[in-house]
Amino acid sequence: MDIASVNALSYEDFVDVLGNVVERCPIVVAAVWSRRPFVTFDDLEAAISEFIDALPLSGKEGILRCHPDLAGRDLRSGTLTQESSDEQAAAGMNALSPGDVDLMARLNAEYKQRFGFPFVVCARMHDKAGILRQLSERCRNGRAAEVARGIEEVKKICRLRLEALVRVNVQGDAAKL
Amino acid sequence: MDIASVNALSYEDFVDVLGNVVERCPIVVAAVWSRRPFVTFDDLEAAISEFIDALPLSGKEGILRCHPDLAGRDLRSGTLTQESSDEQAAAGMNALSPGDVDLMARLNAEYKQRFGFPFVVCARMHDKAGILRQLSERCRNGRAAEVARGIEEVKKICRLRLEALVRVNVQGDAAKL
Repeated sequence: MDIASVNALSYEDFVDVLGNVVERCPIVVAAVWSRRPFVTFDDLEAAISEFIDALPLSGKEGILRCHPDLAGRDLRSGTLTQESSDEQAAAGMNALSPGDVDLMARLNAEYKQRFGFPFVVCARMHDKAGILRQLSERCRNGRAAEVARGIEEVKKICRLRLEALVRVNVQGDAAKL
Repeated sequence: MDIASVNALSYEDFVDVLGNVVERCPIVVAAVWSRRPFVTFDDLEAAISEFIDALPLSGKEGILRCHPDLAGRDLRSGTLTQESSDEQAAAGMNALSPGDVDLMARLNAEYKQRFGFPFVVCARMHDKAGILRQLSERCRNGRAAEVARGIEEVKKICRLRLEALVRVNVQGDAAKL
């Protein structure tokens, strides 16, 4: 779909198609629909980022809390969203050894105990070793830094989910497509 | 569940249990978890209302856009959330005559065309005749008035959904329960 087609969507179709670019937060794109028309893909992405940035701290924490653990209970119970399932599989999270499953569970629990929200990372940009290393390292950060870092990861995930749905084009292309 | 039990929930269980008190917007309770402990039911309800009120206008429109039409495509296709399905049934929306289905569809379309979000009403507080009357009347309102009115209805729906999950108690009861 090109950006012109995105701009032509009713809010219902816009939310149906793009509703999960931020995990389990369709309110984000439902809000951003007010900003149409988008000149480019980047314009749409920027509108999403700006909406997220304008949320109060609790809202940013809320976004993080709508994310599942990596290799956690939703993966085991098959209740991940399709997008999250694909991303976790791409990073090998569905094929961990029993030892790595235990390690992930322990580190995830430690992270959540410390911060009150889950460890969020753009899984498609990392492999198992990189994810385990980041999870260990980020457990030691301060809370404010981790909210900011988690939200940056949310935006990376969003970018890749958007790219799977909307053609990336450069400024000026929109009128031609 | 009493308010003390609510306060004892992890954020994951809190979002699992209360996530749809605002239709398809789990971010709201996920954000509000930061405000624990809640002294009473009303304290929890107030925290939800305050979070909604603090959203920018586009965020309030976003909440409205996460709501389905009454007697609309999600009812026909069986894709309503359980809560919404029960509420629409309680107001008779699943048993309309073909003529009333057409009338609802026409008025819903007119409302959405005018405002860019759906007509939201607390269906459990009305019957078919009342809903049709309100829908006709509210189509004539201004946009700002309808955002505010829709959000007030979201809060009424939220109150009833909360009451179905959390015991309403008076101040001071929390410690005893």
